[in-house]
Amino acid sequence: MQLTPIGIIHSPFLEPAGTPIQPAVARGAEGTVEVFPEFAEGLQDLEGFERVWLIYWFHRAVPARLRVVPFLDEVERGIFATRAPCRPNPLGLSAVRLLSVQGNILQVRELDILEGTPLLDIKPYTHRFDHFPVSRNGWMDQVSSGPGIADDRFSAERKNREE
Amino acid sequence: MQLTPIGIIHSPFLEPAGTPIQPAVARGAEGTVEVFPEFAEGLQDLEGFERVWLIYWFHRAVPARLRVVPFLDEVERGIFATRAPCRPNPLGLSAVRLLSVQGNILQVRELDILEGTPLLDIKPYTHRFDHFPVSRNGWMDQVSSGPGIADDRFSAERKNREE
Repeated sequence: MQLTPIGIIHSPFLEPAGTPIQPAVARGAEGTVEVFPEFAEGLQDLEGFERVWLIYWFHRAVPARLRVVPFLDEVERGIFATRAPCRPNPLGLSAVRLLSVQGNILQVRELDILEGTPLLDIKPYTHRFDHFPVSRNGWMDQVSSGPGIADDRFSAERKNREE
Repeated sequence: MQLTPIGIIHSPFLEPAGTPIQPAVARGAEGTVEVFPEFAEGLQDLEGFERVWLIYWFHRAVPARLRVVPFLDEVERGIFATRAPCRPNPLGLSAVRLLSVQGNILQVRELDILEGTPLLDIKPYTHRFDHFPVSRNGWMDQVSSGPGIADDRFSAERKNREE
């Protein structure tokens, strides 16, 4: 199971600290998704969608941990009950707002992804397939929503500095 | 970028033909997600979530195509504007209903995944991070919703039979 980057995400966020933790809290943040030319044909018909899923590689996260203190909480949680980046397979998932598609470049807003992140897949976000009403959100229902901005707790660079 | 399966998905769907194309059309379908014991600690706190994302490997899809005729349409679309399995990186994404977590086994409903599929990641589905109102759904707004059941057009076995 070998992955091939299909593009690179360009973002104003150069460091983990200060980056929005999810698109839902990244209202003003804009960036571009550069899809490598050999995959550009696959972007046909994408522009009609208001929002798209980006699947990407958390290239600057520390190695996997099975329990983490997530940004929104103060106690340890199982990694699969969080969206933290230090996962056994460091796959990121963000539904960003799609502004335009020009050739192999997507302009996007509500971006929560670091500059230079390798892109693995793009899928359309659709009302029918992705918009589920849910009333139970586990531990997230017990915490205050907070600003939703990351610090460097999962940053490989911080870990390297400390060692 | 090497992936490690963290588990296996067990499903009543043994063949692509007849499998629901998305959880949204798979109401009655139940199955289990077997997480390998070495990753079970990461499941802590997951049971409080009503729905979870499964990210998995489309292990029975034909090799990547950049244009496909999706199940819901009759004309070719760019692969990234569809949820078809034959993607440059064959990563599947499904928000299934979580019924229970017992040790390393998740009981799930609204399952649209084939028996034996390698599991790569689990993330909580949350109202705050995943439930976006969208009014534009591209080509999907132009097609009738249909039953949402797959045939074998993207099946590696069919392709092998034909060769």
